[in-house]
Amino acid sequence: AEIVVLPGDGVGPEVTRAATRVLAEVGAHHGHTFAIHPHLIGGAAIDACGEPLPADTLAACRRADAVLLGAVGGPQRANLQATVRPEQGLLALRKELGLYANLRPVKPHPAALDASPIKPHLLVGVDLLVVRELTGGIYFGDKQRSATAASDLCEYSVAEVERVIRRACKLARARRGKVVSVDKANVLETSRLWREVATRVHAEEFADVQLEHQLVDSMAMHLLARPREFDVIVTENMFGDILTDEAALLAGSLGLLPSASLGDGGVGLYEPIHGSAPDIAGRGIANPYAAILSVAMLLRHSLRLEDEAAAVEQAVSRALDAHVFTADLGGTLGTEAVTDAVLAQLQ
Amino acid sequence: AEIVVLPGDGVGPEVTRAATRVLAEVGAHHGHTFAIHPHLIGGAAIDACGEPLPADTLAACRRADAVLLGAVGGPQRANLQATVRPEQGLLALRKELGLYANLRPVKPHPAALDASPIKPHLLVGVDLLVVRELTGGIYFGDKQRSATAASDLCEYSVAEVERVIRRACKLARARRGKVVSVDKANVLETSRLWREVATRVHAEEFADVQLEHQLVDSMAMHLLARPREFDVIVTENMFGDILTDEAALLAGSLGLLPSASLGDGGVGLYEPIHGSAPDIAGRGIANPYAAILSVAMLLRHSLRLEDEAAAVEQAVSRALDAHVFTADLGGTLGTEAVTDAVLAQLQ
Ligand SMILES: CC(C)[C@H](C(=O)O)[C@@H](O)C(=O)O
Ligand SMILES: CC(C)[C@H](C(=O)O)[C@@H](O)C(=O)O
Repeated sequence: AEIVVLPGDGVGPEVTRAATRVLAEVGAHHGHTFAIHPHLIGGAAIDACGEPLPADTLAACRRADAVLLGAVGGPQRANLQATVRPEQGLLALRKELGLYANLRPVKPHPAALDASPIKPHLLVGVDLLVVRELTGGIYFGDKQRSATAASDLCEYSVAEVERVIRRACKLARARRGKVVSVDKANVLETSRLWREVATRVHAEEFADVQLEHQLVDSMAMHLLARPREFDVIVTENMFGDILTDEAALLAGSLGLLPSASLGDGGVGLYEPIHGSAPDIAGRGIANPYAAILSVAMLLRHSLRLEDEAAAVEQAVSRALDAHVFTADLGGTLGTEAVTDAVLAQLQ
Repeated sequence: AEIVVLPGDGVGPEVTRAATRVLAEVGAHHGHTFAIHPHLIGGAAIDACGEPLPADTLAACRRADAVLLGAVGGPQRANLQATVRPEQGLLALRKELGLYANLRPVKPHPAALDASPIKPHLLVGVDLLVVRELTGGIYFGDKQRSATAASDLCEYSVAEVERVIRRACKLARARRGKVVSVDKANVLETSRLWREVATRVHAEEFADVQLEHQLVDSMAMHLLARPREFDVIVTENMFGDILTDEAALLAGSLGLLPSASLGDGGVGLYEPIHGSAPDIAGRGIANPYAAILSVAMLLRHSLRLEDEAAAVEQAVSRALDAHVFTADLGGTLGTEAVTDAVLAQLQ
């Protein structure tokens, strides 16, 4: 299989190196060869050629079976005046590849409960999946700026809502059959559209799935107050961005959470949900678990190698059982030592 | 003083009744008479006259020294097809009265720590104030709807950002001198404007205050992972809506959190941050603390009666010390019993 790797900025290169080591090893164990094609994105691409998503990178991604990304942007590169920003590379890539469904699973590992601010008894049995709409909403609407004001347009079409609701309902069928759709329908027109479409798609096609609606403000409470009750949570782009970082509190660290961004067929994009963490970049201490678990999602969703995916997840789980921890989890190990431990557990 | 009371929908009438009892009693203790003028808003107003904010109500609010509100809207009334919605009454009132700064203090009470999903040691010493911009942003921008799509426009002017940042910095001066401004400047144009204006206003007028910027997704984590570190948090309307409901987890219950909505001079609006809770409405079990603490904010901010405000807060604190709890706090008492206990503690 052909895999494009986009290390990006900050800790991105460190965690993708860890992830590709694991990918190569699981391939060796199961008799696959993965061809790895590294390309530039984000700030690293701007430095090299002035563009956050070079044409070469995009073309390579389109040809690939899957894309593994580290992170882009971050405070160091937060030049507000700049007309070209690293994040644009990632946003354009998601849009160009039609990756409208961003899957962010959250399943706290028993060994990481100490690192969570949430009381441990609330975390037992938590196993949820956020499906974030990724190519619409206020991220991609028209943006205006004058000397005295600025604006961002949030837009959703019926078709955009339908396809992500469908995806969420299908995913729920293979899980515990429950979907909570999150919006702000008491204030926003896009949210009223969202709720109507969700209600209709559910009634017409997914009567076997249980659908509930929540307002985003209430959801910001319920998500952590009664996390066990959630199975699939589906929401629009911006709400999904906020709620998944919040959900990371359940797992103990953002450094443990992978994601898969999928369209209808075609290539998938896999990336940790954490950012480029410029404050710790280059020091060899970044947590590689999220990138490694993104490899598992890549194996499962793009390459249909379920056994290999499960092997990676089990190796991670064993390493966590053994308290193989970076600093964010309360440990002292570096990126490489954690990766070595995961490799040692691979079988 | 002239106080307009807007009970509104759901549990609104129950909790405002509790609040006005406390207001009358603290007045009696300190030799003030408060004239209470009840008016309609929200679903109750739609039922009576077809409009969520009748002209009479608005006129009375403009004439008043302060407005005390219960809650509006809620699921029972969530008719998506309706062209007139209860929430519009509240949004229009905030806008018409120019109440651009919504103050939402969060200071967990030791007796309520059990009700919080957050580990108790993280809550010790938490004392933060969210200043939410309340009359701009995506709540008030142009809304469009067609058969196939919908949109909401998020707009901010320089002047709108300046005034709320100033208010937050001034409030921080009277506290611990720290402000965190929350935006999504790596994606949104309105957030880049927000960050630039915050940076400039701070540099020009508030060099004595410490200012930090956070992205809203990161903030959704930090708020609960290290809550003690925050003093004043200032943010735009929608982010403030989400983050304050999340912050309620620190206090153990939404039912404990009051708010004050202020403009430049003129009348102030005081309301619990909880909603109309239709599921428990009319059963006499709603938590009245948030409404009672909103009375304290009213006494302080609109009537400049600091001793009276402190007396109400102390009475609430004593009642909580004595575990005078409604169901949301793990207790069994009803609205009236809790209110009686607070009145008994008033001195
Ligand atoms: C880097 C940024 C543009 C991105 C987003 O907001 O989508 C990130 O926060 C994420 O969640 O993947
Ligand atoms: C009722 C609703 C319009 C309101 C808001 O979103 O502002 C409420 O959630 C609040 O936080 O005061």
